This record gives sequence, C-alpha cells and structure tokens, in this order.
Amino acid sequence: MAANTFGEIFRITTYGESHGKGIGVVIDGCPSGFDIDLDAIHYQLQRRKPGQSAITTQRREEEAFEVLSGVFEGITTGTPISILIRNTDQKSKDYSHIATKYRPSHADYTYAKKYGIRDYRGGGRSSARETAARVIAGAIAQGILKSKGITIQSFVSAVGDIQMTDIKKLDYKLIDDNIVRCPDNYTAERMIEKIKDIKKQGDTIGGIVTCHIIGCPVGLGAPVFDKLHADLGKAMLSINAVKGFEYGSGFDAAKMLGSEHNDAFTIKDDEVITESNHAGGILGGISNGMPINFNVAFKPVATIMRDQKSINDQNEAVTVSGKGRHDPCVVPRAVPIVDAMTALVILDHMLRNEVVRF
Amino acid sequence: MAANTFGEIFRITTYGESHGKGIGVVIDGCPSGFDIDLDAIHYQLQRRKPGQSAITTQRREEEAFEVLSGVFEGITTGTPISILIRNTDQKSKDYSHIATKYRPSHADYTYAKKYGIRDYRGGGRSSARETAARVIAGAIAQGILKSKGITIQSFVSAVGDIQMTDIKKLDYKLIDDNIVRCPDNYTAERMIEKIKDIKKQGDTIGGIVTCHIIGCPVGLGAPVFDKLHADLGKAMLSINAVKGFEYGSGFDAAKMLGSEHNDAFTIKDDEVITESNHAGGILGGISNGMPINFNVAFKPVATIMRDQKSINDQNEAVTVSGKGRHDPCVVPRAVPIVDAMTALVILDHMLRNEVVRF
Amino acid sequence: MAANTFGEIFRITTYGESHGKGIGVVIDGCPSGFDIDLDAIHYQLQRRKPGQSAITTQRREEEAFEVLSGVFEGITTGTPISILIRNTDQKSKDYSHIATKYRPSHADYTYAKKYGIRDYRGGGRSSARETAARVIAGAIAQGILKSKGITIQSFVSAVGDIQMTDIKKLDYKLIDDNIVRCPDNYTAERMIEKIKDIKKQGDTIGGIVTCHIIGCPVGLGAPVFDKLHADLGKAMLSINAVKGFEYGSGFDAAKMLGSEHNDAFTIKDDEVITESNHAGGILGGISNGMPINFNVAFKPVATIMRDQKSINDQNEAVTVSGKGRHDPCVVPRAVPIVDAMTALVILDHMLRNEVVRF
Amino acid sequence: MAANTFGEIFRITTYGESHGKGIGVVIDGCPSGFDIDLDAIHYQLQRRKPGQSAITTQRREEEAFEVLSGVFEGITTGTPISILIRNTDQKSKDYSHIATKYRPSHADYTYAKKYGIRDYRGGGRSSARETAARVIAGAIAQGILKSKGITIQSFVSAVGDIQMTDIKKLDYKLIDDNIVRCPDNYTAERMIEKIKDIKKQGDTIGGIVTCHIIGCPVGLGAPVFDKLHADLGKAMLSINAVKGFEYGSGFDAAKMLGSEHNDAFTIKDDEVITESNHAGGILGGISNGMPINFNVAFKPVATIMRDQKSINDQNEAVTVSGKGRHDPCVVPRAVPIVDAMTALVILDHMLRNEVVRF
Repeated sequence: MAANTFGEIFRITTYGESHGKGIGVVIDGCPSGFDIDLDAIHYQLQRRKPGQSAITTQRREEEAFEVLSGVFEGITTGTPISILIRNTDQKSKDYSHIATKYRPSHADYTYAKKYGIRDYRGGGRSSARETAARVIAGAIAQGILKSKGITIQSFVSAVGDIQMTDIKKLDYKLIDDNIVRCPDNYTAERMIEKIKDIKKQGDTIGGIVTCHIIGCPVGLGAPVFDKLHADLGKAMLSINAVKGFEYGSGFDAAKMLGSEHNDAFTIKDDEVITESNHAGGILGGISNGMPINFNVAFKPVATIMRDQKSINDQNEAVTVSGKGRHDPCVVPRAVPIVDAMTALVILDHMLRNEVVRF
Repeated sequence: MAANTFGEIFRITTYGESHGKGIGVVIDGCPSGFDIDLDAIHYQLQRRKPGQSAITTQRREEEAFEVLSGVFEGITTGTPISILIRNTDQKSKDYSHIATKYRPSHADYTYAKKYGIRDYRGGGRSSARETAARVIAGAIAQGILKSKGITIQSFVSAVGDIQMTDIKKLDYKLIDDNIVRCPDNYTAERMIEKIKDIKKQGDTIGGIVTCHIIGCPVGLGAPVFDKLHADLGKAMLSINAVKGFEYGSGFDAAKMLGSEHNDAFTIKDDEVITESNHAGGILGGISNGMPINFNVAFKPVATIMRDQKSINDQNEAVTVSGKGRHDPCVVPRAVPIVDAMTALVILDHMLRNEVVRF
Repeated sequence: MAANTFGEIFRITTYGESHGKGIGVVIDGCPSGFDIDLDAIHYQLQRRKPGQSAITTQRREEEAFEVLSGVFEGITTGTPISILIRNTDQKSKDYSHIATKYRPSHADYTYAKKYGIRDYRGGGRSSARETAARVIAGAIAQGILKSKGITIQSFVSAVGDIQMTDIKKLDYKLIDDNIVRCPDNYTAERMIEKIKDIKKQGDTIGGIVTCHIIGCPVGLGAPVFDKLHADLGKAMLSINAVKGFEYGSGFDAAKMLGSEHNDAFTIKDDEVITESNHAGGILGGISNGMPINFNVAFKPVATIMRDQKSINDQNEAVTVSGKGRHDPCVVPRAVPIVDAMTALVILDHMLRNEVVRF
Repeated sequence: MAANTFGEIFRITTYGESHGKGIGVVIDGCPSGFDIDLDAIHYQLQRRKPGQSAITTQRREEEAFEVLSGVFEGITTGTPISILIRNTDQKSKDYSHIATKYRPSHADYTYAKKYGIRDYRGGGRSSARETAARVIAGAIAQGILKSKGITIQSFVSAVGDIQMTDIKKLDYKLIDDNIVRCPDNYTAERMIEKIKDIKKQGDTIGGIVTCHIIGCPVGLGAPVFDKLHADLGKAMLSINAVKGFEYGSGFDAAKMLGSEHNDAFTIKDDEVITESNHAGGILGGISNGMPINFNVAFKPVATIMRDQKSINDQNEAVTVSGKGRHDPCVVPRAVPIVDAMTALVILDHMLRNEVVRF
C-alpha cells in the first residue's frame, strides 16, 4: 500500500533506490508565491552528504539536483514541485557479496520476506540515501518557515556516552563550526576523537540529535491523534536508525512529581510564557509559544568492518564480512535530516492551522 | 482540519467531550465476518475506567456502551461500526472555578488560543476520557488479532524511580493480579505504596508502560515514512500525558557500539530468529518475527491538590487551586490504552500488508 | 477498506443501517466559531424524509436528531460534531420475504457477494436512509456557506419526459411551493400528475435534479484530479440511484463547435463575467465566479409493486413480489440530498483554497 | 492543498508543466512481482501523443520516458515507480502573445486568480500534456489487470452529431483500425471527414468516448461514497475538456419506468447474469460481474483559429487571435486517457477489495 508520502497539506512523496537511476521528491501542496532558494537546498544537501569529513563515510555522492516542475521564474506556482537527484557514485559491485545474505540488523531479511523481491544493491529503498529527498523538501519548508519567523536548530548532543552537559547556554552558530555538529567545541572535540577511535576499530557508535524550534506560534497541532509531538515523533522515528523520541522532560518525566513538572504560566514583557518548560513547548498536543525541544536517539550503524554470523536466503549459516564505505557514527549527517523532517511537520501544521478559523 | 481519525485501512474516528452528551467511535474498514465480543470490550473499559481502585481517581464513569451499527447478529458486516458511551457522572460544576483560568500544564491555554472557544468543563476534547473510545476500538482489533495468533501485553514497568528489574522472565498473567498492573508482585507492592504516599501529599507521579507484541508475523510495516515503529510511536505519543517512546534498545542504543548492538540471525527449530533482540522485533521499519517491545513514558498528572500560580484569560495573575477527582498516577489506567493503540496499529498494518503482493 | 468518509478538510463519516439502532454522522474539520442552526437541519431533514407528501413513500421516519458533541453553547468548537438519528419506524418484517432473494436492480446480490454477510432488512447500508446523515452535515455546511454569501438551489427539472423548458427565468422561492420541488408551478403540476399515475400502476419513474450555486468566489477547485466539477460529480454519483452527471453545457457539448461553445470574457459593472456560461461556472476545474450549474440523472426506483423474476442465494429462480412502502419517484426527496452533497464539496474547497496562498 | 494524487492503494501523483523541464508520475502502492512492459507503455503514449495523424494537432511530443525507480530487473519491487518524460518540442514563444491575456474557455483566468502567479506557456499545469503521465500509470495498471483477466476497451462513439448507432455488435479490434478510434469503419470515416472539415474552418468540435470494462469480478466498489461508478465518474471528470459522465442507462434512465429499467437476475451457464444491463455492470455502487459501460462527453477544444473577444490581466478588452497547433477534436487522443483512468480506478478497487475479508 502507498506509504511513501508524508504530510497532510504540505505533502511530500519520495522515490528511488540508492543504486537505481536516482532519487527524488514531489512536493504537493506548497503554497504559491514563495522564492525557492537553490543555495539553501544545496547547503542542506552538503550537510547530509557522505564523504563530507573525516568522520563520515568516504563514499561520495554528487548531490546535483534538478528542479523539474512547480517553479516559474524562481517562484513557487502552487503546483507540484518535483526535484530529482541522479545517482552517480554507485559501486554496485560492492554489494555482490551480500546478494543472497542477510546482513545483521539491516533490512535485507525483512524486505525480502515482505516483497518477495529485493534490490540488494545498497539496501535499495531502505538505504539512507532516500533521506536526501527529504532534505530537499525540508530545505524548501525551512525557507518558508523562516519567512514566518520560525527557525529550526538541530545539533548533536551525544555520541556514545559523551554528552553535552549544559544545553541551555547554546550558541546555534557553533553547530556547523565543527564536523560533528555539536555547538560546544570542547565536547565536540571529544566526540570527534571518540568517533575516530571507533572507526579505527572497524566499529560504529550511536548518538543523540537534539532539536530546538524557535519562534513557533501558539496553536499548532491537533487535539487528539495529530498532536504536534505525535507528528514530530513519527517524523523522527521514520528516519533510518532512530530508536527513540522524547520531547520536553521526556523519559525523565516518568520519575517526576506533578509539583515539580508543572510549568507555571506567567506574563513577561506582555507575553504569556511558562516559568519552566518541561512541556517542551507543547501542551495537550498544541504548541504554547515556548521553544519546542526534543531528543532523537540513533543506534550505531549496522555495517561494521568485522565478520558477523548470519544466514542466507536458503536459511544456511553464513559469515557476513564488513566491506564498503560506511559511517562510523551517523549523527553528524543526521542533523540536517532532523532539521528537514521537523520543518515538514511544522509547516504542515502551520497550514493546517489556517483552516481552524474561517 | 480533520484530525480525529487514526489508521489507513482499519480506521477509527473518535468524537465527544468529557462533559458533553457522550463520547464515541466509528470504526471504518473493519473486515466482515468477525465475531464482536462485547465482554472483551467491557473488560478493557473496566481496566481503563476511573474509580477502579484505591490508586486511581474516585471519579466514576459508567462506561455502558451501545453498538449503533456495523454488526448484524453479532458478526461484523464490513460496514462502519459505531459505538457510543453516554456521559453520566458529569460534575461540571467542579470546573466552574477554572472557566476563565488556565491550569498549569493543561491544554486550557493552547485550546483557547487555537480555537477561540473552549469547553472548559473537564478539558473538553483534551480530556483523557476520549481514550475510552480508543479502548473500545482497540478491544475489537485485539479480538481480530487474537484470531490470527497475535497478542499484546502491556504493563507498568516503572512508577517514579521504582522500576521492574528483570523484564525478561515475565508472566503476563500477573499483569492484572494487582491494581498497578505490574507483573511482578513485589515491585507492584512498592509502586502501590509509592502512589498512595504521593496521593496523600496531594501530588502526582509519572511512570512507564512497557508493551510486548507476541506472534507478529514477518513483514508488517512500510519502508519509508510508515515504518512500523514510527506508526507505533505516533500512536503512543497521541495518548494524553505521554512524553517519550523508544523501542528495542531505545535510548540506550545511543551509547552502544555496532558490534554490541547488531542481532545475529540464526536458525532455531527451523525458524529464523535473532540471537539478541536490540531491534525490538523491527528491522528497517518492518517486523522480523521476533517479539516487538517498546516503552512509553508518562508525565505526572497535571492536576495536583495544591495551589499553583497561573494566569487567566485576561492575562492576569491568578491562583489555581486543586479541586476535583484526579489520578495520582496515570500508568495503571494507561495500560489498556497502550494495548488498544498498539492493536489498532498492528491490525492496520496486517491489512495493509495484504495488498503488497496480489 | 474505509470508505464511509467524504471530504478533505471538512470531512464527514457516516454510519448506520436502515434497520439497525440508527444512523449518524461525524463531521471532523468544521471550523470553530459558527452558530449551529438546529432549525435549518430540521428543515432539510423534513424535505428529505419519507411520508412527506402524496407522491413519496408513506413510510414514516421520525428524524429526531441528537447533537452528541462538537457544539458548546450553540457554537462549533472545532472538535468533531457527532449527530445521531435513531431508527424508529422499522418494519423489519416487511423484508423477511426477501431475506434470501436478490431483488432486481437492488444491491442485495452485490453486497452479499462482496461481504459474505448481509443485513437484508431494508438494504442495510445501501438504503437511501443513509443520506439523512449527509443531509444533516450538508445543512451545517450550507449555514456556513450562507454566511460567506453562497447559496445552493437544487430543484427537479425533469420527471420522465416532462421537463422544465425555460430554466433561465427561475424563481428559487417557488422550489418548495409544490410537492415535486419544481420551481415552475405549471410543469410541477404535470409532474405530480405523472407520478401519481405511475404510482397507481405500481411502477416508478426516473427524473433529473438540477443544481445552481450562486455567489461562489473565483478560485475553488484544484487543477488536476480534484477539479471542482470532478468532486461535484463524485458527490452526486455517490447518491443512491444516480446514473449521470453533467455540468454547464454537459452532454450537449459533444455536439457543439468551439466557436459556439467558448464563453467570451467581458467586464460588467467592474466585474469579470463571461457572456455565455457553457462552462457552467468552472474553467480548468476552478470556479470562475459565474453561477455553477449541473444536472443529475436519477433512475426509477428499483422496488416496484409487481412480480419480478430473480434468483435467490442458492442460485435458484424465484419470484420477487413488490411489498413495502416505496417512492414512485425519488427526485422530490433527492433535492435536499443534492443540496447537501453540493454544500459539502463547496465548503471543503473553500477551506482547501485557504492554504493555496499563505 | 495537495491535489495531484489519485487513488487509495494504487496511488499516483503527477507533476510537471507543458513548457517546463518535463512531466512525470510517481506510482506508490504498486504490488511487487509484476512485469513492467515498456512496449505497452510506449504503445499507449503513441495513442495519446499529438501529431499522430491528420486529425490531431501537428505539435510533436517525443514521449521518450525514463523509469527512474521501483523496477528491478524488469519486475516491480513494491517501491514507488517514478517515470519521467522530458519536454522537447516546446515552442514557448507561441504563447508570448497570450502572456497577459485570458483565452476564452481556458484556465488562464481562473489559475491566475487562484494562485496569483501563472506559467502562461502552454497552460502550465492545466495543459492536457499532464495526461501523458496518467497514460503511463494507466498502462502499468492495464498490464496488471490483464493478468487478472480484465480488459478495458474505450472508443469514440460520437463526434458532433455523428454517432455510432449499434454499439452492441462491437469488434474491439477495430478501435485502432482508423485514426478516429471508432470501431465501426463506416461511421469512423464520416467522423474523420467531419473533423477535417471543422479543422479547415479553424473551428473545433466535441465528441463522446465510450468505455467497456470486460471481465470485472463481482464485488468492486464501496457502499456509500466510494461507489465504483462515483470513482469512475470522478476519474473521467478529472480529464481535461470533459463535461459529463453517465453509466449504464445514464441520462436515459431519467425517462424510464422501473418496470423497464430493472434488470432481471437469471442463471446462464452456471453464472449469475442479468437479462438486460441498464445497471451498466454496477449495483449499489458495487460491480455485479456484468460488463461495465459508461460514456464520457468532451467539449470542443477551446483554442480556435479565429479572433475572439476577451480581457487581459488589467481587465481591459482585448482580442485573442488563434495561433499555435491544436486539435480540431480531442476525442481520438482522449481514448487512451479514458483507458488509463479507468484502469487506475479498477485496479485500486481490486486492491481495496482484498481487505474486505481477512
């Protein structure tokens, strides 16, 4: 069943496999009259692309994209925006050794069983390459949100057990100051060392991306199923390798008392604010005007440079050897993907909110 | 915009406010030919209902439900199943003191700002009473899943800092052996004491519900946006008071190495299994046949029996006093809601999977 | 699969069988802040109900409806509006003679084959009684549209071969001046006589309902699949007994030349108008500000008071005798249903149009 | 709002303007394991393309398409199938004379007002070129349906007042025997002469396409809103220039008596059939196993080679001169589009029907 579409009003559909002709996105429902900033799209793709630094995979993707429709003289026309990235650096032969083997903790086995057919080259549709299409759409959404005063700031807050300690005093300008995308250069350096060390061992490591949404108006989100944080959660959990999502106080809330957790309303500079923000900017599923924040947990990349026990498509025991070019840690490249998916959710809810009063 | 519908093929729409005429659910897309077990619906409603034990709110809800359509001689006909619960124990006057005040960490403020009108009695649509409608639909879904060999087992695994330690040796029959719904009577007793203690202080406390899905076939879930865990995550995050969701290794995965985290495939009794289950039964968004497991974090209930600082609809500082009948800890009553939402997701994906091959 | 929902933003879901507990509608996506006019709902239900005149079925339906949710102190709150009509005049025994027989040109056979189970009493879900739920939702939509200056005027333009000749000089106030709902009393009288004559013969006859939408702004409808007339067409074709839909020049267009058919743009009183209106108020799927008009063809009611050849559920030849209370001609009662479905489409597209520019 | 998607389970999204980079389609929900017949796609595109004969526009479109994703070694993988046609013969200058003028009976005016921006070259998204994307998806759907024993046969049954008289004795093999696609060579010749004559006059003419669906199983279609004929009607009305849709007895039903119209069930060769087929193969919105048939009325093409009165974007009176290369009659090229949209509806309902029983 159709399942490659995300969003209700601002709606994207992605397609493409990592080793096919290319990947792409069709954005349907983009309002007319907005400038499309190709440089902004390019910038976000650069942040996501492999081979960008010493701590990412050395696989190279060119990421030249082509706008096929929906834009006239640089302005959105309200018709579907179709954007294509052709695949170039496809070393499909890298995958021939796993054509009949199921790699541990990859989607090979489940895809083969579900569809009865599998494009084994690079994971086919399960490849994280698909997220480049999301990053394109997200960059467009971020541009529109920016014109409405909303900015999205994602960053790496943990790599393994190395965590940022004081997240409150953040300088978002530092996010891209280092290759791990942690806006605290001291912690960033320790993260980078850690990743390099793990890479040497042929191993991989997990991490956490934190996202802040600044300037979100009151009223986004719907009361019951489409709570703002439920849609953000689904968006994040739909990203490859994500294992958990929490917003505001998150899992810590389970240990707290109501008297600690409740955020007192008060007035500051004629604005309604809350004194604390355990709510994470969302009350009853609807944004309350405070900054929105959430954490996304990523598992370590499944491809490791070691021999692993597994089975093949005849249910025989086999050894899967680590080959190919893969990330030792996915979070630095996940930052623009979190930005993108966040922007898609927020813009969609902005538009949905337009029809609540009429 | 319409936002009270959940599911693609097995699709529910809920309606109703806590202090209106009643609440209800319309299930559209239920396959024909299944028995409707009214006792099973009643049982799940009893597990959710207020006033069921010394550690829940003493507010009473009758929970007598009426099947209005879609069932002929006890069998589903394939047409929409509409079920209504009328409200009875509505002490709307309990809420007159907050008609113009915004309770801290409640949805009062955000609803008022979003809609420009608010049914202040009991939270209106933001009331957890809405979840009774979900429990009804979930009970029907659980019945259908059971006939396919799938069972869902949710339980309380933490209340504040009291946690179950060894979740592996579980006896699901113990879940309803105690009023807190923790299948470990020793831990359960400590949880119950804790909740009673918190209640005496007029305070509330958070907790965690864990869910296990047993017997799920390989192949449920879709590759990109509608990953099985993404849809489970959205379902859980749409439940009132939920702050976080993690599946399999969850947030711990962020600290792990790939060599630790990967689950080796092997054959046991002619079945494909994995030696460990950090995947939580889901690989690449698709179920792999292993047990599915996830955790859901609940914040402490916002209504506490204490005076709190807040503002009113004129932006004036006010004091909100704790009144009414509320739960000191929501997790025991959340268990059947987690069961229900899980069943809705799994059954919907079972049906979605029917059209992948044709 | 779920298929009882209509609309994208203003979205209704109907449920209920003619001989079950009742029928109802849930409206999700109704904007907040609108008055609900119960009298207007009642009025439209009266226009649809059986037994209203000498030329409709003598079966009586009470049509007392109950608003269960979504309205607070008479105003829409933005939450789902649920409205229930309980069934009362259910002579289920009237149908026992056809429990195993398939009535010619009814849905008995196809429903039985599709679902494997059939509520044979009164056609179950295929009964036109379901349309009462649509009329309720349509009355609410008409109220909102009226506040925006849009009115919908449906009327009977043909019964058998008796047709209104000059549709241009219409006085909509005459529509409900006669029991056949034709706004030309001379033609109406001939239609009424015709229907009475047909009824005496135990037979039934078809007819045409014409609809005019006045005051529709420019810009409703979407360019490709969701053309305004495509959505109107689907809405009309979803009404029981409808066999055809045409708008503007309709089937006559197939015989016309471009030079005849094209509508010249011109300016009148500072407004853009077209000199003719073969377009029927819609160009390229989008309303152009001129009156919208379309015709809906209804077949003769399938239940006739005669013996007919058929088969039963054992594939044996049987005779189906005409029993029960049925309409000799459905169009007078179809008028409010056409009004209702039209209002649902127009309001939905009004709301959809709100998010095209942002 | 997103409106370029059609279908529930087999779902297509189209994009592209006539004078942009290209047009394309993404098919999401295509089951895995089916052969993709590129020749069949090519064949249908040839039937739709301009410049194919003396009675179509002489504008040439190359219609070379590229499969970007979703197919592995010639077989569908269950992932989105993306197919792109690049634009080549774009004489955008042909349109410079109408950049600020609104052509009569075109979408120029309504698009400009709706979106506030308009790609005036060739109608942008309102161009019938968009239907090439539908034809591609339809060809794939037709291939899958054929493997299930279902064939779709559309043909021209009327051009202006020249109509096929005896539609019952049809030889579908004759459809493509002549350039007008009428499977009656005598009538076809008269139609061709008529179109050539109209073309000489610089005028255009309307017509009717009739469609027969053979081999459709019992049970397709849903009871209420998604009646099979309602979805077919919407599909047809979404095609450019369509003004009306009728199925089975169609508008004639309005003049008939129930005793004439009812189709008696009987058994023939152990199969349930009806003696007549006024139902057009659909009862109560659900296919009954008899051939499905419907008519689609097309208006004359709006572009004529004559001067016409109109206005420009400053509301000034202007003259629009006929320029460019356009069809004198659209129906010969509409035949494969009707085939395609029909296939999309039938296949989608085939898949939807898979989940009714479970």
